[in-house]
Amino acid sequence: MAHKVSPLAPASFPALPEIPGVRFATAQAGVKYQGRTDVMLAELAEGTAVAGVFTRSATRSANVLDCQDKIGGPSEGRAAILVNSGNSNAFTGRNGTEAVAALSDGVAQALGVEASRVFTSSTGVIGEPLPHARITAKLAELSGALDPAGIEAAAKAIMTTDTFPKGASAEIDVGGTPVRIAGIAKGSGMIAPDMGTMLVYIFTDAQIARGPLQALVGEIADRTFNCITVDSDTSTSDTLLCAATGASGADVSEEAAFAEALEAVMLDLAHQVVRDGEGATKFVTVEVAGAASHADARKVAMAIANSPLVKTAIAGEDANWGRVVMAVGKSGATADRDRLSIRFGDIVVAENGWRAPSYSEEETSAYMKRPELTIGVDLGLGEGRATVWTCDLTHGYIDINADYRS
Amino acid sequence: MAHKVSPLAPASFPALPEIPGVRFATAQAGVKYQGRTDVMLAELAEGTAVAGVFTRSATRSANVLDCQDKIGGPSEGRAAILVNSGNSNAFTGRNGTEAVAALSDGVAQALGVEASRVFTSSTGVIGEPLPHARITAKLAELSGALDPAGIEAAAKAIMTTDTFPKGASAEIDVGGTPVRIAGIAKGSGMIAPDMGTMLVYIFTDAQIARGPLQALVGEIADRTFNCITVDSDTSTSDTLLCAATGASGADVSEEAAFAEALEAVMLDLAHQVVRDGEGATKFVTVEVAGAASHADARKVAMAIANSPLVKTAIAGEDANWGRVVMAVGKSGATADRDRLSIRFGDIVVAENGWRAPSYSEEETSAYMKRPELTIGVDLGLGEGRATVWTCDLTHGYIDINADYRS
Repeated sequence: MAHKVSPLAPASFPALPEIPGVRFATAQAGVKYQGRTDVMLAELAEGTAVAGVFTRSATRSANVLDCQDKIGGPSEGRAAILVNSGNSNAFTGRNGTEAVAALSDGVAQALGVEASRVFTSSTGVIGEPLPHARITAKLAELSGALDPAGIEAAAKAIMTTDTFPKGASAEIDVGGTPVRIAGIAKGSGMIAPDMGTMLVYIFTDAQIARGPLQALVGEIADRTFNCITVDSDTSTSDTLLCAATGASGADVSEEAAFAEALEAVMLDLAHQVVRDGEGATKFVTVEVAGAASHADARKVAMAIANSPLVKTAIAGEDANWGRVVMAVGKSGATADRDRLSIRFGDIVVAENGWRAPSYSEEETSAYMKRPELTIGVDLGLGEGRATVWTCDLTHGYIDINADYRS
Repeated sequence: MAHKVSPLAPASFPALPEIPGVRFATAQAGVKYQGRTDVMLAELAEGTAVAGVFTRSATRSANVLDCQDKIGGPSEGRAAILVNSGNSNAFTGRNGTEAVAALSDGVAQALGVEASRVFTSSTGVIGEPLPHARITAKLAELSGALDPAGIEAAAKAIMTTDTFPKGASAEIDVGGTPVRIAGIAKGSGMIAPDMGTMLVYIFTDAQIARGPLQALVGEIADRTFNCITVDSDTSTSDTLLCAATGASGADVSEEAAFAEALEAVMLDLAHQVVRDGEGATKFVTVEVAGAASHADARKVAMAIANSPLVKTAIAGEDANWGRVVMAVGKSGATADRDRLSIRFGDIVVAENGWRAPSYSEEETSAYMKRPELTIGVDLGLGEGRATVWTCDLTHGYIDINADYRS
């Protein structure tokens, strides 16, 4: 499990502001990993609105099903989020449902909150019964250690194959009152779009009711976490929770600045997940324009971002734009070979149905050596646009995934 | 380009029967490769019916477009197939169309056949102009060397990243007359379903009109070449041609035995393509049953077969059935976690929504060490079934594809 830190990682974990109304604690429960924290508890002040976006997998975990049951409920009373790493509690049958109930009840008792306000996530191997008693045994310790400054420790406790903890924050001013947002995420493999990817927890002291918060988070997730892919595989546990404590007293329901700040935090975290893609050595932005529709643009962007041949070419620093043509062709989107143009960064490599006359292998090869690349495709057909983010496919991915369980 | 022979390769190239009415020749044209043959010419006797199945890529090559134009034409006169390796002539714009015309006209002149009866294929790198003059310069040599026994040499000339040439044959008896089928194929990467995968040429001396032959080949392709996947990437050049010379004089239009023999040859070749999957060390059969529909079964089978996480687990000989659960969940097919069962070979690993009570890690791990594996999934919902074939995802795939062009 000790893989070296991604070369695309930020220099350090950012300084995140404390969020009034939120306290964190972590513990070493030994769920699977030894010698590191693997459980985090977040306590949320009375009246905190909680919104969520979840995996659409047909085999989603017991925790996800339980969160989905609870997420629409009333926002009265305190709430809590409990997360463990090392075991996903997915495909664990009745045992999984019982485990979630035991965890929820345990937290409810330890903190004196309603079990219906306790949200749990589990991440790690699929199909192994979750030894939930190891976690509940730590709840007294956890509830005694709650600390408003504990968010970085929380980001570390939820890691699995991640090589660095992920955090992001923003602060806006609402009529003279500062409003803060701080988020953490984990995710590295089994990352694919169309769900709140992997585990993401965002906290803010903004005042906003659950309904508008849910609408906002869902909409932003579509442009951030649903636009990243590492390996096209979709987790059974993907969960994004956003908790607004209201402690600032500033109502942000109509504040465009809040939506923008929230989107910046979510996009930053989404990019960090890609930067920690298993084995990643390149951060790749795929920009598609000129498609017949936005849906077509997304199909093309995802076909490129998920193509093993495109991803291995990028790993090899090979300007193999022919594979981009291939991915456009297989995407299922309307495309006209002779209107298609492709660029790597600002270098036009193909246009009018063949290699650009200005193409320079030397210039393009030099570009490919950069750690951050942009592949641009213009289909020349309409106004459809999409941007997705991905990474390359390297020996590191094979190393990590050919022996993950052992 | 010199990769070691796949461990899943057959012991040797099979002895293929000569097909009356078909002659082959090969040459070293130096399209890209040096010191090996890279062009093959097949001459087909007067009246040969030619059927074809092609890639559905929106960016298909000039050769594919030309074959599709020609394939419905009359079956009078002789015909020919010309194939080069080293350059796919795909995404080569007007230059590509001109190249195909030059090759067709060249063959027409050299053999005295109609250009409308000359079918060409090109395979190799995408987007580089095809140096077609190097090929036409060899047509006199090729037409002088035509040999009914040349099929093995033809199978070798069409290879790109293939590590072994692929051939298969069958013979049936039609009212005392022997009817022979012999086929060759190439393909190793950029292999995915929903098209006649890669380059496949099948020859028979059976007598059958073009219409019924086309119907038969199309139907069988759906159960064979359209049910294999190496990497989910779809070539711009995929072509399957089936030529029936009629030289045996045996009408097979109503012969079930012919259809069965043809299917056996096509399935054998399809499996050989998977066995030569880039970097493959395991041949994997994915059998899905109990789906709500055949289409759902196919979705699930393909989601499993294309999942990088499933494929790397197989490479690591890890019985990580949780990733199979993940792939079922992301497939988009109707699934009920609690009715799903999964087996590796005959070993039931998961049922009733969790790990099978009889599960033995030791027994399953021993099974995973085999070179040929079966993953069975029963969705427990209906009568939908599908079988697809794939291989694992290894360091070898990265080695081959991170520097293919160089």
